[in-house]
Amino acid sequence: MAAHTNGAAHATVNPGPTPPKITLYTNHKCPYAHRAHIALTELNLPYSEVIIDLNTPRPQWYLDLNPRGLVPTIAYSVPGVLDDEIITESAVVAQFLADAFPGPFLPASKESPTSALQRARINFFADTWSTKVGSNLFPLFLASGEEAKAEIAAKTVAAVEKEIEPLLKNAAPFFNGSQELTLAEALIAPFLVRLIDASEDGELAPKSLAKQLDALPNFSKWAKAVRSRPSVLGIYDAKEVLEGTKARLAKMAEKK
Amino acid sequence: MAAHTNGAAHATVNPGPTPPKITLYTNHKCPYAHRAHIALTELNLPYSEVIIDLNTPRPQWYLDLNPRGLVPTIAYSVPGVLDDEIITESAVVAQFLADAFPGPFLPASKESPTSALQRARINFFADTWSTKVGSNLFPLFLASGEEAKAEIAAKTVAAVEKEIEPLLKNAAPFFNGSQELTLAEALIAPFLVRLIDASEDGELAPKSLAKQLDALPNFSKWAKAVRSRPSVLGIYDAKEVLEGTKARLAKMAEKK
Repeated sequence: MAAHTNGAAHATVNPGPTPPKITLYTNHKCPYAHRAHIALTELNLPYSEVIIDLNTPRPQWYLDLNPRGLVPTIAYSVPGVLDDEIITESAVVAQFLADAFPGPFLPASKESPTSALQRARINFFADTWSTKVGSNLFPLFLASGEEAKAEIAAKTVAAVEKEIEPLLKNAAPFFNGSQELTLAEALIAPFLVRLIDASEDGELAPKSLAKQLDALPNFSKWAKAVRSRPSVLGIYDAKEVLEGTKARLAKMAEKK
Repeated sequence: MAAHTNGAAHATVNPGPTPPKITLYTNHKCPYAHRAHIALTELNLPYSEVIIDLNTPRPQWYLDLNPRGLVPTIAYSVPGVLDDEIITESAVVAQFLADAFPGPFLPASKESPTSALQRARINFFADTWSTKVGSNLFPLFLASGEEAKAEIAAKTVAAVEKEIEPLLKNAAPFFNGSQELTLAEALIAPFLVRLIDASEDGELAPKSLAKQLDALPNFSKWAKAVRSRPSVLGIYDAKEVLEGTKARLAKMAEKK
């Protein structure tokens, strides 16, 4: 188990009077687990980490924690209040941490007369990415042949232009005028970096995709800010993730 | 435009000192719009209603409000604070209303040391229904032939037994010990009532499905409470919805 303090200078500031004890069950190659790492880092929450091997059947002790066997899982304790509560599913985990530690990442639901609306805008943006853009990623990476990839890439660029670009008109540089990364970016970033890095590499996605996305004025500024944010870079090793994805897809192709 | 007060006796209690002005664009046959009706009713929020015809192309004025042309959409104003803010996508709308008016339906994110966790449990439950059970509904209704329907029905019952039944062990009668209907039920109920009513009718779904679900002790108690809740029954005309779905599916089959 490795201990993370996410910057010792901040570690005592954010968690408030009763800091939680957090154990994160994760895998550094998984985009869903990546969401939890970004949220924990943005919220300056110290945590211990247990790496789950996703290439072998999950051990019984992990299935006892999370019957689905997926990552991330967090075990969360607050002395005298909560005792090793298990929370699973990346979007639920990120939202939980955001709710427990309100601030620029996500305002508390009743923080101000407009905070419910700010939260609704963030929800809508993350949902739009997920249903209109994110859903293309796996089919794109999996498609064989330049033509098949070009078709899905074109659909992906069109979806970003139609659905995402207008929602970023007031990004500063983060969603909805925020100077700090928000929950929306924490949910989207793991997939955004994988999409652009795969395109810049050129094997899983055509090189033209990153170039076309870079021509969208709002999107390109926002994506650049997200892709250089320390919390997003943290555990993400672009090269290792890309090679891992290629290996996994090659294995799937063999089995066909 | 029809005005709804959701019970005059309560209308002045919940909205607080600055009641919002809400216009709901809806269609009484649409399960997604149904979610918004349930949330508004549970929160005792008065609203005006505009019915959107989903059988004809959406008029330009509606596409200007909601480019996706879907229902529900709400226009939401609070004098001096928010001016006709447009909110779309049923889960976003329901969550927004819950955040704006915290209470038994959904606690505010920082209401207590455990409210973030209560919210996470609700999120996880609604997400589990949607990904494991709800995703079977349309394929089930669409499937042609007894055998095809029986197969999807069996998968649906198995998913409820494995994924939903354990999460309802402390329902009272609503999710996670709540005596009042929660956001989780508001998101799930429109699909739950359609599934069970279709099965009891026997044409779109086999009659055995409702019987098998009724044999699950936690689920059956919970489903009964949800299906008899006035906010769920409100705009829902089971017979009309069922006939509408049959007609729509018949039209789709013709086009094939």
